[in-house]
Order: sequence, then C-alpha cells, then structure tokens
Amino acid sequence: MTNSNSDAPKLGEFELIARLFAPLAAHIPGALGLTDDAGLIVPSPGHDLVVTVDALVEGVHFLAADPPGDIARKSLRVNLSDLAAKGARPRAYLLALSLAPWVNDAWLAAFADGFAQDQARYGIGLLGGDTTATPGPLTLSITALGEVESGRMIRRAGAQAGDRVFVSGTVGDSGAGLAILKGEGTALEETTRAALVARYRLPEPRLALGAALAGLATAALDVSDGLIADLGHLAKASGVRIVVDAPLIPLSPGTRALWGEGREAVIRAAIAGDDYEIAFTAPASRESAIREAARASGVPVHAIGRAETGAGVVLRDENGQDIPLSRTGFTHF
Amino acid sequence: MTNSNSDAPKLGEFELIARLFAPLAAHIPGALGLTDDAGLIVPSPGHDLVVTVDALVEGVHFLAADPPGDIARKSLRVNLSDLAAKGARPRAYLLALSLAPWVNDAWLAAFADGFAQDQARYGIGLLGGDTTATPGPLTLSITALGEVESGRMIRRAGAQAGDRVFVSGTVGDSGAGLAILKGEGTALEETTRAALVARYRLPEPRLALGAALAGLATAALDVSDGLIADLGHLAKASGVRIVVDAPLIPLSPGTRALWGEGREAVIRAAIAGDDYEIAFTAPASRESAIREAARASGVPVHAIGRAETGAGVVLRDENGQDIPLSRTGFTHF
Repeated sequence: MTNSNSDAPKLGEFELIARLFAPLAAHIPGALGLTDDAGLIVPSPGHDLVVTVDALVEGVHFLAADPPGDIARKSLRVNLSDLAAKGARPRAYLLALSLAPWVNDAWLAAFADGFAQDQARYGIGLLGGDTTATPGPLTLSITALGEVESGRMIRRAGAQAGDRVFVSGTVGDSGAGLAILKGEGTALEETTRAALVARYRLPEPRLALGAALAGLATAALDVSDGLIADLGHLAKASGVRIVVDAPLIPLSPGTRALWGEGREAVIRAAIAGDDYEIAFTAPASRESAIREAARASGVPVHAIGRAETGAGVVLRDENGQDIPLSRTGFTHF
Repeated sequence: MTNSNSDAPKLGEFELIARLFAPLAAHIPGALGLTDDAGLIVPSPGHDLVVTVDALVEGVHFLAADPPGDIARKSLRVNLSDLAAKGARPRAYLLALSLAPWVNDAWLAAFADGFAQDQARYGIGLLGGDTTATPGPLTLSITALGEVESGRMIRRAGAQAGDRVFVSGTVGDSGAGLAILKGEGTALEETTRAALVARYRLPEPRLALGAALAGLATAALDVSDGLIADLGHLAKASGVRIVVDAPLIPLSPGTRALWGEGREAVIRAAIAGDDYEIAFTAPASRESAIREAARASGVPVHAIGRAETGAGVVLRDENGQDIPLSRTGFTHF
C-alpha cells in the first residue's frame, strides 16, 4: 500500500489505512506486509494465472449511504464471480482506492472489515494496493488474481453447435431485489423482500461450481449484464447461435411471487442484470458430470437451451415460438 | 474490457473504447481480445509474478488539460518503475478507467495512442480492463504485471549493515521541472527548462538496470516520495540506518543551474519526489558487477552512502556533519 506525497491531505487517514489494511495482507507472504513497491505471487506448479479488474464509482455502482462493508464485499465478489466463471480458484486481490472527502475513520474501519469477512469466506488475501485522495466520488478498483490448471481456463469462446446451455442457481433475483428497492412488491412477505434485496446487495460468486466446470464446460461467463445479453456475448465470442427455452429459465419462488408465473416474469428475469450466476455450455454427453459438479458444489444447474450454427440469441416460448425481445424494451444487443 | 449495463450513459463511447483498446491487446494472447471476463497470464517457467497497482486522479495526479497521451504514458511508467525496482521484467497491464463527463472521442483516441507508444517502447500489452462512467474527475488505475526469476525479486527489506547505498541517474530533476512549472528559473536556457520539465512530465522507468540488479542488490525501491523519504522506507523495512553523503548525491547540470551548487540545492533535490530512479543497497564486493550492470543498461549509478546498524536516515555534509532535515521543512518521516 503506497501513497505519493502529492496527494495526502490527511496524513493521519493514510496511516489509519495502513493500520486497517495490513491485517488483510498478514497471511499472504507475497504481500510483504503492504510495505513494498509490489506484491509477489508464485503460481502453483502447472497453473496459469487468471486476472480481472473492475472499477466501482460512488453514485454509479453504489451509494455513499450504503453499508461500507457491503461496498467492500460486493466489489470483491463481482471480481471473484469473473474468476469463478473462468474455472479459476481465487488467490489474492489488489485494491486501488480513491478516497472522497466525506470518508471518515468509522467508514474506513467498516470498509476494511467487509474485506476481512470475505477474505476469510473465500480464502484469499490482499496482495497490494494504492490509496489516494479524490475531490470527487469515492472510487475503487479491485484486481483479482486466481489460478487454474494450465490450459483449463474456461473462455467465452468455445461453445460448439450441439452443446447444451446451462445456468447455475436462479435468474432474476437481483433484478427483483432492485425492483423492490424501487417500490415494487410492497405486498410481498418481508422475508421474501429481504431475500431478494440481499441477492441484489451481495452476490454469491459460484467459485466451487466454476472450479468444477474447468474441463467440463466448453464456454462460460458470469451473468452480470443479464442472462440474454451475456449469452449474446458468449454466442458472439464462440461464433454460434444460442436458443434459450424460456420455460426452462429457473426463477426463484420469491421472484415468481413478485413478477408472477407468466411469460413477462421470465423475460424480466432474463434481461435483468447482476445475477452473478454462471452461464455455460457443454456437450450433452457431459451432463451427468455437470450434475455431479452441481451436487458437489451445492449449487443447482439447469439446462435452458442449446447452441446451434448461426449467430445471436433467441428466446423461445413453450410452443417453440420466438419471443420478440425488442418489444420488451430490450435493445441491448 | 467489460462494462456493466448500469453505468453506460453513452454506449457509443464504450464502443469507441472497445475499438481503440482492442489493438493494445492484439499481441497478448491471454488478453483474449478483451472480450472475456478475465485475462490469462502464463508465467515463464521458473519465474514468479510481480504485481503492482496505482490509482491516478484528475486534479490530484494530472490535470484535465494535460496531453492525454502523457497521462496514459506517465500512469503506465509509474507502475513500470515499481517493477523495475523489484528487478522484474514487465509483461502486461490492466486498466480500470472511470470516464469523466468531459472526455470526448479525440481525448480517448490520444489517450489510447499514448498507451500504444509506450507498449511498443517497453514490449508489453494490455491484458484486460474495465471502463465505467463517473460524474467526478477522470480516475484510472493501472495494475502492472511483471516477472522475475523465482526467488529473485528485490525487496525493500534486505539491506545489511555494511552495504553501500546507490542511486541511478540523477536526483531532483523532476522536482526542478515542477519548480519551473511553478515559476522558478525563468532566466534558465529554454532547453534546460524543457529537459527538466520533461523529466517531471514523463519518467523513464529503469527497467534494464533493475533487471540487471536482481541477484546483485540486497534491497531496492524506486524514488517517488523523494530520495531521503524513500531511503527511510528502505531503512525501516530492512532494519538498518542509512547514512547518505550529501556531496555524493548526483545532480544534473540542469538542476544545478536552477538551484545552484550549494548545500540547499542538494537538500531540495534529496527531498523532491517523482524521480523514478532506483535507490538500492549492495555489498561493496559487488560494486564492480553493479558498475557493469549500469554500463550495460546505459544508466549511470552513483554510490551515495552506506547502511549501518541502527534506524532512520542521516544526511551528512562534506565535513561529516549531520544536516538537520527538520529545518528544511522536511518532516515526512
């Protein structure tokens, strides 16, 4: 954790950060106590490193009033979700932090505590970072490093015509949680509302499942833009067309309670973002191995469609008719 | 390069970024065309990875009016300088970019071109990134990845009592350049002024020298906070006291022209920041090998002091008397 002398209006704050963040690096030998110019990471023998970065901005990705621990945990988990979708096991992360003037000591302590909680949960640690001041919104970027057996990273490109298309967990819960925060579903039970909002606030990266899919899935990504949009990315990278059977898209009871049992509920779920489930493809011959991976990792997996020759994504209703997505206001791709 | 659907007020801009940045990743196979969730890096056999991150904020580290290519190049070079001081050879970098509302297409094109120039100069490429919008100042963070033979990363900790202390290049030029921008040295020759300002605007990471020092230096860091402050970091990490002979600190003719030949000039140079030279320690027995490394890399190296038992940094004058740094307004450590 370094900071240059030109950007330290409150030296005490940077000392506090050093004190708060050093424990996050204590069990990562390569972090060198966050007192060096760089961190050192030694990949396990026979492994490649997988690296991803995300930037998060106050007022865009989170609000200043959000619980600081949740901001930390969501920022970290969004990156871990990328690693999960690549079949990688997370090792460590780096944090670049631009502190807004409103940040105080209590906020920083709770922010660091959020990282501490999720580090313990996911068995990772802080490898390095940089802290600076900003006159603008709080901004952070997290670089996550994971590893995967050499040559086994699951890419977006790799789906073959004939593959089945799968998705983990349930789709749309995060979007439903956001809808509730925006005023929908006031008649729902409070436990249902809280569960959906929790999925919006704090995703659960599917790390165990992702690691088990390395060697099984032909292509994968995490669902962040929305199931249909992300399958569009996968289809484009792989050079295939993806057909999704709308009735097979797994919706949670909570999302069904909010949006109903009809086609519109499925469409809303399929275009809502921030699920952080894994969407992937694999040959039908591997379906039993995939079901075993799902069982072992405790995350259900549903077959929702297939890859064909062609391009783009098609959503089909129970009668095999295309559902025109443009009419739903979905013009993302 | 990914961006989430919640933060794209100008989709065209993100498409432009994808078009501008894809060529920066074209020769890095693990970048996967910036179309995947993560990048892949395969360390050379027998090598460790060295990772560093820096955040840079408009109005703090650069100005909106600065040439966009220079912002890109300085941001990158500051990170490469960290790798150089660790003895690492740079491989790739990731860019997290939070775009301010004032950014336009021409700015983005020049910004990307700055990266392209320095990628070619240093033989690296873009491994991944993330772009988002910010209502505040332009903010970027760069994560640089390098590699070093296993176990050979040069740390801040490692200096031994009895080691000599060295610094590359000349000290204070960047501070002198900043002083000129603030109005000093109006009587200097324009070429001298321009050369000093150039050192402030665009550091030159000492990569060849740094790589040659792996296995020779016992400890090293890059001079960013200022020579004395950084040697203080090194002394603290190594558990030694460092004595610097002020007359041995190498000042360029330009800095001497600005600040004169006296003791005050040396003190100003020694506490000015942003030199991005390498300060390091090594046993006297390795001095000839170090001089050979300096010759081979084309960067002069000067012996400026020694490590002793104790703590802290002492600056000594030509008579061996301590120069009291507190009187100079230097209260950094």
